[in-house]
Amino acid sequence: MLGLDAIVRDALLEDIGRGDATTEATVPEDARCKARLYAKQDGVLSGINVFRNVFHQLNASVTGWHAKQDGDRFRKGDDIALFEGNTRAVLSGERVALNFVQRLSGVATLTAEFVGRVNGFNVRICDTRKTTPRLRELEKEAVRHGGGSNHRFALYDGILIKENHITAAGGVSKAVHAAVNRSHHLMSVGVEVTNLAELDEAISAGADVALLDNMNNEQMREAVKFVNGRDIVLEASGNITLDRVRDVAATGVHIISIGALTHSAPAIDLSLEIANA
Amino acid sequence: MLGLDAIVRDALLEDIGRGDATTEATVPEDARCKARLYAKQDGVLSGINVFRNVFHQLNASVTGWHAKQDGDRFRKGDDIALFEGNTRAVLSGERVALNFVQRLSGVATLTAEFVGRVNGFNVRICDTRKTTPRLRELEKEAVRHGGGSNHRFALYDGILIKENHITAAGGVSKAVHAAVNRSHHLMSVGVEVTNLAELDEAISAGADVALLDNMNNEQMREAVKFVNGRDIVLEASGNITLDRVRDVAATGVHIISIGALTHSAPAIDLSLEIANA
Amino acid sequence: MLGLDAIVRDALLEDIGRGDATTEATVPEDARCKARLYAKQDGVLSGINVFRNVFHQLNASVTGWHAKQDGDRFRKGDDIALFEGNTRAVLSGERVALNFVQRLSGVATLTAEFVGRVNGFNVRICDTRKTTPRLRELEKEAVRHGGGSNHRFALYDGILIKENHITAAGGVSKAVHAAVNRSHHLMSVGVEVTNLAELDEAISAGADVALLDNMNNEQMREAVKFVNGRDIVLEASGNITLDRVRDVAATGVHIISIGALTHSAPAIDLSLEIANA
Amino acid sequence: MLGLDAIVRDALLEDIGRGDATTEATVPEDARCKARLYAKQDGVLSGINVFRNVFHQLNASVTGWHAKQDGDRFRKGDDIALFEGNTRAVLSGERVALNFVQRLSGVATLTAEFVGRVNGFNVRICDTRKTTPRLRELEKEAVRHGGGSNHRFALYDGILIKENHITAAGGVSKAVHAAVNRSHHLMSVGVEVTNLAELDEAISAGADVALLDNMNNEQMREAVKFVNGRDIVLEASGNITLDRVRDVAATGVHIISIGALTHSAPAIDLSLEIANA
Amino acid sequence: MLGLDAIVRDALLEDIGRGDATTEATVPEDARCKARLYAKQDGVLSGINVFRNVFHQLNASVTGWHAKQDGDRFRKGDDIALFEGNTRAVLSGERVALNFVQRLSGVATLTAEFVGRVNGFNVRICDTRKTTPRLRELEKEAVRHGGGSNHRFALYDGILIKENHITAAGGVSKAVHAAVNRSHHLMSVGVEVTNLAELDEAISAGADVALLDNMNNEQMREAVKFVNGRDIVLEASGNITLDRVRDVAATGVHIISIGALTHSAPAIDLSLEIANA
Amino acid sequence: MLGLDAIVRDALLEDIGRGDATTEATVPEDARCKARLYAKQDGVLSGINVFRNVFHQLNASVTGWHAKQDGDRFRKGDDIALFEGNTRAVLSGERVALNFVQRLSGVATLTAEFVGRVNGFNVRICDTRKTTPRLRELEKEAVRHGGGSNHRFALYDGILIKENHITAAGGVSKAVHAAVNRSHHLMSVGVEVTNLAELDEAISAGADVALLDNMNNEQMREAVKFVNGRDIVLEASGNITLDRVRDVAATGVHIISIGALTHSAPAIDLSLEIANA
Repeated sequence: MLGLDAIVRDALLEDIGRGDATTEATVPEDARCKARLYAKQDGVLSGINVFRNVFHQLNASVTGWHAKQDGDRFRKGDDIALFEGNTRAVLSGERVALNFVQRLSGVATLTAEFVGRVNGFNVRICDTRKTTPRLRELEKEAVRHGGGSNHRFALYDGILIKENHITAAGGVSKAVHAAVNRSHHLMSVGVEVTNLAELDEAISAGADVALLDNMNNEQMREAVKFVNGRDIVLEASGNITLDRVRDVAATGVHIISIGALTHSAPAIDLSLEIANA
Repeated sequence: MLGLDAIVRDALLEDIGRGDATTEATVPEDARCKARLYAKQDGVLSGINVFRNVFHQLNASVTGWHAKQDGDRFRKGDDIALFEGNTRAVLSGERVALNFVQRLSGVATLTAEFVGRVNGFNVRICDTRKTTPRLRELEKEAVRHGGGSNHRFALYDGILIKENHITAAGGVSKAVHAAVNRSHHLMSVGVEVTNLAELDEAISAGADVALLDNMNNEQMREAVKFVNGRDIVLEASGNITLDRVRDVAATGVHIISIGALTHSAPAIDLSLEIANA
Repeated sequence: MLGLDAIVRDALLEDIGRGDATTEATVPEDARCKARLYAKQDGVLSGINVFRNVFHQLNASVTGWHAKQDGDRFRKGDDIALFEGNTRAVLSGERVALNFVQRLSGVATLTAEFVGRVNGFNVRICDTRKTTPRLRELEKEAVRHGGGSNHRFALYDGILIKENHITAAGGVSKAVHAAVNRSHHLMSVGVEVTNLAELDEAISAGADVALLDNMNNEQMREAVKFVNGRDIVLEASGNITLDRVRDVAATGVHIISIGALTHSAPAIDLSLEIANA
Repeated sequence: MLGLDAIVRDALLEDIGRGDATTEATVPEDARCKARLYAKQDGVLSGINVFRNVFHQLNASVTGWHAKQDGDRFRKGDDIALFEGNTRAVLSGERVALNFVQRLSGVATLTAEFVGRVNGFNVRICDTRKTTPRLRELEKEAVRHGGGSNHRFALYDGILIKENHITAAGGVSKAVHAAVNRSHHLMSVGVEVTNLAELDEAISAGADVALLDNMNNEQMREAVKFVNGRDIVLEASGNITLDRVRDVAATGVHIISIGALTHSAPAIDLSLEIANA
Repeated sequence: MLGLDAIVRDALLEDIGRGDATTEATVPEDARCKARLYAKQDGVLSGINVFRNVFHQLNASVTGWHAKQDGDRFRKGDDIALFEGNTRAVLSGERVALNFVQRLSGVATLTAEFVGRVNGFNVRICDTRKTTPRLRELEKEAVRHGGGSNHRFALYDGILIKENHITAAGGVSKAVHAAVNRSHHLMSVGVEVTNLAELDEAISAGADVALLDNMNNEQMREAVKFVNGRDIVLEASGNITLDRVRDVAATGVHIISIGALTHSAPAIDLSLEIANA
Repeated sequence: MLGLDAIVRDALLEDIGRGDATTEATVPEDARCKARLYAKQDGVLSGINVFRNVFHQLNASVTGWHAKQDGDRFRKGDDIALFEGNTRAVLSGERVALNFVQRLSGVATLTAEFVGRVNGFNVRICDTRKTTPRLRELEKEAVRHGGGSNHRFALYDGILIKENHITAAGGVSKAVHAAVNRSHHLMSVGVEVTNLAELDEAISAGADVALLDNMNNEQMREAVKFVNGRDIVLEASGNITLDRVRDVAATGVHIISIGALTHSAPAIDLSLEIANA
C-alpha cells in the first residue's frame, strides 16, 4: 500500500509528538523486551502489517517476529504476534499499534459475521463509502480480510446515480445516458431504483447495476423476478442487519452492501503483554 | 482547531480525488439546492463545524445556514442543519460530511449516556488514547460535547506510569521519582497501582494520580477508604460498561476513563435530504 | 479541481523560489500594468483558469479580467485574455502562467485536429496514460477541451488486461474471470486482443472492452465484422497518426486512443504583452 | 538530486493511487519477471535513474540491473536496460517509468540534434525556463545529457532584464545599474537589447550578457562586430529552428537559447518487454 | 526524535536546492575525503547527531565515524568528530551541518555556564518558550545537554496562568479554579504572582507552581519564607543574568527560567577541516 | 515572500499544537483586547509582517492596526505596533509572534551597527550562509532592513570556490575555468585566495570576485593595491568585529561579509502589553 508509511507516521506524531514523557523518564535507552500480542476475544485479524510498521518506524529493532496473517481467525487467548524489540520503542508505539489492529480487526470480524450468515448463497457482502475519514484504504482491506468484497473505492472509480442525480438529470434514462456518454469506456454505470418501473427504465437505458435502496425483502424478490436473467447486477442496500441478511440473500440479489461494516464495527479487544528480554 | 482544514482536505481527496464521476455527468454546473440534515435517531451533536467546513472547501457557496450547535441534544426527526448551496458541491461532499458528523456524534452520544448514568456523583467521565488514528483531536472534542472530560491528549502532555514502566524502573517509588525528576515542573505524575501496598507507595513517592487498573468495585472502595482524603486523584479504568458505571462512581473514585467512548461508539444515523432550490 | 492550488504553488516555488531578482531590482513595488495574452498561432484554448490562478496566488490584484473560455478556438492574433494587475506579480508569474497555458493548449489543439479528422464517424478520440508525470488531471481536461474523450484516469479506475497480465493469469478467459471476480461491481473489464480467436475468447469470458492493439486497418475491419453487434466495445490503439486516423475510424471501431495527444503535443505559441497601466 | 524521491512518489500516487486493479487481480503476488527496455527509434538517453527509482519505490526487488547511462546514444532496437524484478511491481510501475524516460530522452535527443548542427562553432546550445511545470530540474539535466548547456534555472539565480523591466526602470542604463546595486555580488546581469544603440548602452552600463531577442542573422552579425571583443556575452534567442541554428552560430554569438528543447520535444518511443523469469 | 529527518531535509533544500554549483563544477563525483570537525573555542557539544544526519541524507557514505557525544565538554583545539566520506557530499553539506551544531552547542554552552554558577544549590536552570521558531525540540535538547532542565514544551503541555489570563478570568483564584476544572487530571497548574497576597491566593486555590515574575532578590526571599514548606514550586523568571543567577538561587526558589538560553546564545565556533582521503 | 504562510503555520503548530490549555480555560471565547507592542531597548525593526501574519492565521480579527515599518529605527519605550483583536488569539499567538520579531530585529539591529561603523566608505556589509536553518529568507531580509546587503542566498545561486574546491580541481586556475565552463552564463565566479600569487591567478583566470579569507588589514591593503583597478571585486571575510570593521573598510575592499549578523545576534527585547478592549 503506497501511502501506509505516511499514515503510520502521522499517527505516531499524533500520539508521541515530541516524546513519550513517561517512558523516557523510566526506561533505560537500550533495554529490550519480549512482546506478545494476544486476543481477549474471538475474531478475524486485520492490520498486522500496520502493527509491525509502527515498531519499524520507531526503530524498535524487532527480532524473532512470528505472527498470524491478516484474514486469519483467532480465538480468545490465542497469540497473534510474538517478537522482541527495544523496550522504549515498544512501549511508546504500543497504543498506536493497538489502535490500528483492534479497529481493523473489528471491521474484519464484523464482515466475517455477515459473510458467515449468507453461507451457501451466491452473493457478495460489500462495504460502502461510510468509512473513517483518511483510513478508507485500510478499512476496505479489512473488509476483504473478513471475506467481504469491496464496493467502489470513491466517487472517482465508479458511477452510482442516486435519487438526487436522477432529479437533476430529468429521469432515470436521461441520467444513465449522460453517465454513459460522459464517463470513460471502462466504467460501468449503477443507478438507484425504487420500484419496478424505474428498474425497467434502468435496464432499457443500459445501466449495469441497479441499487435497490431500502426495499423490503418482498420488493427485492419481485425485482429479481422482474429482471429474469437480463444483464444487470442487483444490489441491496439499507438497513441490512445480521438478523436480516440471510433473508436478503435469499431474495436472489447479487450484492448486499452494508455501511455498518466500517462505520459501526466495535474494536476487537487485543492486548500487548511485555516482559524483559 | 489549527489542523482542521488539512484533515478535511485529506478526507475530500480520499473520496473525491480527481472528480465525482456521477455528479459531473448528471448535474448542471450551476444548479443550486436546498439541503436538510436531519436525525434518524436521538443523539448529541458533534462535528457540525467539520460538516460545514467540507462544503466550504468545495466552494459550495453556502447560504441560509441555520444549524444546531455541537453539544446540543436532538431527537429522531429533528433538523440538524438547513442550508442552500451549489448542488454539485453538496452532492460531492455529502458522504465525507456525513462520515465526520455521524462518527463524532456517535462519540458524543455514547459519552452523554455514560455521563447521564453517573448523575449526582462528583466524578469525571474521561476518554483515553484509544482513539481513531489521526482523528484524536476531533474525537476528544466530541467527548467534551457529550459532557465528558478529556484525559491527557498524548504521550507528551501527561505522565502515566504503567506496569511495564514500573518493572523497568525497579518499582513504584523509583518510577515516580524518576518521572518527577525528569519531567518539567508543570507536569503531574500518574501511576498505575494494583493493590493497596502499591497505592501507599505511590502516595509516599509523591504521585498525583493513581490509576486503579481493572479493580473490582470492592477493591476500589477500599482504595478510596485507604486514601482517606490524602492528596491523590483516583482513576478507575478497565471494563467500565454502561451497566456498571454508576456503581463504579459510587465507590468514590474521581475519574472514570473509558476507551469505548472512542473506539467502539457506533455512528449516529443522520441523513441529508436535498431538493432543488 | 481539488489539487490545482497545490500544483500552481509548486510551479511558482520552482520558478520564483526566494524571489525574482530582476523584477525586484527594476520594478517599483506598487506599479500596475495592462496585460494582453494573445495568440501567435491558431489553436484551441486550455488552461486559462490555471493561468489566472498563477496571478491570484501571487496577489496580483487582477482587475478587468476578460478572457476566452477553455475549449474556445482562437486564430493567430486573437486576444486570449485582457487584464490589469500589479506589475511585479505579472512579470514574476508570466513564465509559469505561459508554461501551463501553452502546453495545455497544445494538447487541446492536437486533440481537436484528430477529432476533426474523424468528423461524421461515431467514434471517440481518447487519451491514454502517457501523460506528463504529475500533470495528468490538467492534460486530461485539455483533451476534453479539444473535443476528445478521456480513457481511464489511472490504474485504479479501470481494468485493462494486457499481454503480460494474460500470460500471468494463464490465458484470456482466466484473466477476464479473475478481473471480474476480484474487482468491484461498478468496474468494466477491458482486455487486449491480437487476433479473432482471442477476441472470441474475450467476448465469451464477458469482457466489456476489447483493445485491438497495433492491428492494421484490415484486421480491425475483420474484428468489427466478427463482433457483429455483440455487446463489446472495440478500441483501436497504437500508431494512430493524423494521416491514418480517418481510415481507422472507418473500420467501425468505437474508440481510438492516442498517446501522442499528451506525450508529444508541441506547445502553442502564446505571448503576454505588458504595458504600463 | 535532492527532490527526486518526492517527484517519483507523486507520479506513482497519480497513476497507481490505491492500487493497480488489473495487476492485483491477474498476477500472483510473488511472481518475478525479466524485463527489457529497448529502443523503437534512435535517440539519446536521459532519465534512466528516474526509471530505476520507480521500481525501487515499488519494492520490485530488482536484480541483474544492466543499463546504458544517461547521455548515451542508442539506435532503434538497442537494449536500454535489462533487469529482473517482482512482476506486479514491474507491471504497475511500467507506465510511470516509461513516461519519465521517454519524455526526458525526447529532450536529450532534440538537444543533441541542435548541438550536432553547430558542430565546430564555439557556441553553447542552451535551454530556457519554458519547461514542464514541476519537472524543470529533470528536463535541465536532460538538456545536459544531450550535450546542451543550462541557462539560469529560475528567476532567483540569474538576472535577465527584459523589455518590461527596462520600461519600468526608465531605460537600459538605469535598469542595469539597479540590478547591479540590488543583487548580490556573485550575480551577473543580462539585458535584452533590440538594436546597437541599446547594446552600446548595455555595455557602458556594465551588463555581462546581452540578449539579442528575435534578431535576424544580419542583425546578429552586426552586433558581434559592434562588440568587437569587449567583455560581454551575446545570447541569441527567438525562432531558432534546426534549419536555422547553424547560421545563427555562424554569426559569432556565444549562446543560443531554444525554448523548444523542453516545451516541444516529442517523446522518444521506448518499450518495456516483460517475460516470466 | 521523530521529526529530525524532515528538519534536516528542509535545511538541505534551503541551502542546496537544485544543486551546489561550485562543488559540481570543481570536484570529481567519486572523490572521497577525510573530515575533521574541531573546536575553535571551549564549549559543550549539542547537535552531533543532527550533524551526522546531514551527511547521511546526502548519501555521503560516511565511514570511520568517531565523535564526542552530545553533552560532552570540549576545549579549543579538540577534535569533535573524525570521518571519511564522499567529498562532494561533505562539501555540499558542510554549512548546514555546521549551522546546526554551532547553534545548538551555543545553547548547550550558555546553559552550562548558568548551571555552573548555581553549583551547590538545589535549583533547576530551565529554558522557556523563547526558542527559534521550528527548532524548539532541538534547542530544548541542547539545554539538557548543557545540564539544564526543560520547562513546558509548548502551550499544550503545561498550564501557566499569566497576568492577562488572571485579568480575563477575574482574579487569581478564579483563574486557577478554571484551569483545574478545564484541564486534564495529569496537568499541574502554574500561575504568575507579583506579590505575597497573590502568592497566598495561588496556594489557597491549589496552584502547583507560582511564577515570581521580575521580582528582585529580596522579594523572592520573602516569597520563599512565606511559603514556608507548603506544597508549591517557586519559579523565578525575568532578567536573570550570569552575574545575578547565583544570588537568585540563594533565595531558595526551586526553578530559574532563562529565555536567553535559547534566544540569545551566540554560536560556538567550530570548523570542518577537509583533506583528500 | 512565497513561503511565509507555511513558516508561520509550522511555528504555530509547534507552540500551540492541539491547543493553548491555559487560555482556553481562562479567557472567554469572544473577548477582545487592545495590544501594544513596544520596545524595551533601542533597535531596528524587522519581522513586523511576520508578527502580523501570526495573528492573521489565528483568526484574531485584528482591527486598528498601526505600526512601524521594517527597517525603521526605534528607541526604548517606543510603540512598535498598536492593534485590537480577539483576546484568545492574541494571547495564544503572542510568544510565536514575539519570537519572530525579536530575533529578526536582533539581526537588523546588529547589521545596522556594522553599517554605521563603515559610514563614508563605499563598501557593502554582507551576510553569509551562517543562518538559522529554515529561516534564511527571513534573516536575509532582516539584514537588508538593517541596511546591509545580501551575499548569495545558497549554494545554487552563486559560485564561490573555496580551498577544498581548489585542491580538488588542481589549483586556482583550473577551478575557475571549470566553474566558468560548467555554470550558466548569468553566474559570476568567486574564489577564495590566501595571497597575492593566488589573487593574480584568480584575476588571470577570469574570476569576478576574490574572497580574501582571514587576511589581516595589511594583507588586504596590499591586495587592493595589487588589483589596482582591475575588474575584480574584493571581499573580506573572517573575524570581522564591530571594533575592527572600520579599519577593514579603510583597506579599500568592496565587500565585508560577517557571519555573526545572523548566527550570533542577540534577540531585541520587545514586549506585548495587552488590555481589555
